[in-house]
Amino acid sequence: MSFSLTVLGSSSAVPTSMRNPTAHVLNVHEHFFLIDCGEGTQMQLNKFKISLNKINNIFISHLHGDHIFGLFGLLSTYNLLNRKNDLHIYAHPEIKHTLNYYKDHFGENLCYNIILHPFKANISKLIFENKHITVETIPLRHRIPTVGFLFREKEKQKNIRKELIKQYNILIKDIVKIKQGADYITSNGEIIGNEKLTLPPYKVRSFAYCSDTIYTEKIIPKIHGVSLLYFETTFMDKDKKLAKLTFHMTASQAATLAKKAKAERLLVGHFSARYKDVTLLVNEAKNIFKNTVAVEDGTVYTVPAERLI
Amino acid sequence: MSFSLTVLGSSSAVPTSMRNPTAHVLNVHEHFFLIDCGEGTQMQLNKFKISLNKINNIFISHLHGDHIFGLFGLLSTYNLLNRKNDLHIYAHPEIKHTLNYYKDHFGENLCYNIILHPFKANISKLIFENKHITVETIPLRHRIPTVGFLFREKEKQKNIRKELIKQYNILIKDIVKIKQGADYITSNGEIIGNEKLTLPPYKVRSFAYCSDTIYTEKIIPKIHGVSLLYFETTFMDKDKKLAKLTFHMTASQAATLAKKAKAERLLVGHFSARYKDVTLLVNEAKNIFKNTVAVEDGTVYTVPAERLI
Repeated sequence: MSFSLTVLGSSSAVPTSMRNPTAHVLNVHEHFFLIDCGEGTQMQLNKFKISLNKINNIFISHLHGDHIFGLFGLLSTYNLLNRKNDLHIYAHPEIKHTLNYYKDHFGENLCYNIILHPFKANISKLIFENKHITVETIPLRHRIPTVGFLFREKEKQKNIRKELIKQYNILIKDIVKIKQGADYITSNGEIIGNEKLTLPPYKVRSFAYCSDTIYTEKIIPKIHGVSLLYFETTFMDKDKKLAKLTFHMTASQAATLAKKAKAERLLVGHFSARYKDVTLLVNEAKNIFKNTVAVEDGTVYTVPAERLI
Repeated sequence: MSFSLTVLGSSSAVPTSMRNPTAHVLNVHEHFFLIDCGEGTQMQLNKFKISLNKINNIFISHLHGDHIFGLFGLLSTYNLLNRKNDLHIYAHPEIKHTLNYYKDHFGENLCYNIILHPFKANISKLIFENKHITVETIPLRHRIPTVGFLFREKEKQKNIRKELIKQYNILIKDIVKIKQGADYITSNGEIIGNEKLTLPPYKVRSFAYCSDTIYTEKIIPKIHGVSLLYFETTFMDKDKKLAKLTFHMTASQAATLAKKAKAERLLVGHFSARYKDVTLLVNEAKNIFKNTVAVEDGTVYTVPAERLI
């Protein structure tokens, strides 16, 4: 029932001694999704004890180097480790140039398949689904085609109280009905109400990753009510002209969007190397959206499993 | 008068949580030379407090990914930091594919020049010279064209004893002659012997970098008597068949070459990730060549300045 984000890199394009380029791993029910793959991603995975082999799906927001330069090393290491599983990459179709360069010069005898799932960046689309979650793209506004990703757990059924199955000798066909909301009639004709038989289902958890982007309110409906929201905040407010010029966001812009979208918790990262201490930056966000955290490389941010009341 | 090597990465192709892919910085008289550029080089430079801007010359041994995947990020960061100085890259001519891929997709508006100095890998050649050192290639035997690099200080003149310049009022034209070995005749006609006037010159220091390569005695004349010798020792002796198959070396093979070449000190690195503790590996080398050290990322290995006796 995990739902947690490990930050592998929280610098913007220029890394620092404390912050690697952009990369994250989202763990949903022990399925691990890599989100962006900046230089050094494989070393960060090693450092933070996440097995490389657990990753089968890589989501790339856009094709700036600080979000993809870790692919080369990771793809090579998978080959050396004799990977067998297919590796799925979800990205803008232009990534084919990078994958072709890699295959032509370093990956001619790859022992596993790379399966590219290209997507358009200007419309939101469902790009991944398994039994636990869906992943949809969130069109963003950056200097090149860019999307965010919305990871959302699927709606969950009610859980039946296990002790009552035994008590009333409930059959499997009836369990299915009860989970869907039915009451239960015992062999004596007694009606047991559904609310007595079941626990409320777990709340659906979601994570929206939005980097890189300029301030845009168009994304609000897509990220509305999200449990965990990651925004790039490359700049402080005093540098908002630079933010606009380079299609990035300031801390208070990110917080404004988080507030308008009624997000539960805001993570900010992708900090410019010019800020030696990001405390002032994150405080700008906190003034607008209190539940804001400046991410650190290696820290795990968890959304707990909670039942609906 | 510095002559020191900082190891940035000491893993072989698969990095570990403790060892990054191959990269080193040699500091000769405060000129900094980057030798190979594996993934994460720029972060390691930050971590070990070596300013990126001090590097103007990059030497690439061969074009396997674990020796060059750090170039992309480094070249981008130089651009973002508004580098002005030319960046010189010494490598096999096939590196043009990597540089062209980079320029076509990420570096179209580079604010500095990349100057490529291509070399043939099958002959030794002088490829760099400044007032302090020369750099020559050392042909190695790997699966693709590969060279090592011999960094060697230039022969030094004797140093005149400064206190005697004042005592005898020695003129500049005479100082030049004394440094070249002449005696000095004072205004009173007294002859002061050269050995009294001068200190012995500093010993010439040298560093040979040899990675990646299979065992080959052909390199011995080139590395003879070197002060500091770096050898790849990807494997332990029990895996020597694998070493031969993959054109790498074992620890005792490296030590044998160091001994035959009468090197002063041997550094071994480029360890396979299969060895969790390299103590056993380095002990195999020490049995043959006592003055052997297993390198660690971030450690600085210095050759002290010593006068000839």
